Amino acid sequence: MSYIQSLYPPEHSHCFGCGPANPAGLHVRTHWDGKEGLCRYTPNPEHMAYPGVVYGGLIACLMDCHGIGTAIAAAYDAEGRPMNSEPRINMVTGNLSVSYLAPTPLGGELLLRARVKEMGPKKVRVACDLSAGGKLTARGEILGVRLQL
Amino acid sequence: MSYIQSLYPPEHSHCFGCGPANPAGLHVRTHWDGKEGLCRYTPNPEHMAYPGVVYGGLIACLMDCHGIGTAIAAAYDAEGRPMNSEPRINMVTGNLSVSYLAPTPLGGELLLRARVKEMGPKKVRVACDLSAGGKLTARGEILGVRLQL
Repeated sequence: MSYIQSLYPPEHSHCFGCGPANPAGLHVRTHWDGKEGLCRYTPNPEHMAYPGVVYGGLIACLMDCHGIGTAIAAAYDAEGRPMNSEPRINMVTGNLSVSYLAPTPLGGELLLRARVKEMGPKKVRVACDLSAGGKLTARGEILGVRLQL
Repeated sequence: MSYIQSLYPPEHSHCFGCGPANPAGLHVRTHWDGKEGLCRYTPNPEHMAYPGVVYGGLIACLMDCHGIGTAIAAAYDAEGRPMNSEPRINMVTGNLSVSYLAPTPLGGELLLRARVKEMGPKKVRVACDLSAGGKLTARGEILGVRLQL
């Protein structure tokens, strides 16, 4: 299954967090199964808050891009059409909120699961859970605002 | 004036966002004037959301580290003692919330101004404004939770 960000139009493919065309970026990848967005991400060793623990700002980046990817995928679904059909749906982040529940261990793969909580014509609200080794360590909410093209 | 993060104890100097000892990090620097925390930061060209606009996840990183730096400086002040005195005050982020009010232009210096809104024995709440070229583009709130050492 291709990931959501690979279907973004070229002008939106440069995002540091998730743009396939940004060579220095994080390359967050959202997979949409029709119900939720899934993202697996293994931070680099330098992405630490302190030794052994993932930097919270990186977690905010992952939730931001994965939340928006999920919101865009869900918005296409809500209109009953495929991801790369015209007119393109693009969104920016209106608000991002992250609660850090426990230290996130650095070294393994993180799993982010995102679900739409509210779908409006202009705004989509997404909740995102982050877990490491099966343990929930952070919870976020992302407000996607649709760009009128 | 030395910046707050240069006074962090060695075990807390590796943070990707603000640790002086993390060579790959962002090196956020907080200056505390006794009333507010100031941070000037020029993002790299790759830190884009789309061409010409700063990536929101980077803004979240800046607010996270600058908010915690401000909270720590204010907590020492509240106890009437200098930043590097014992016992050390360390904090982690409990919650981070950012509202993106307008696109933040990429290319120039950003200014972050942070102020304590609530100072408790265990938790400090900090508000942070980010502006570019004199225009406010994002507003954040950071909850710092004191580590019991």
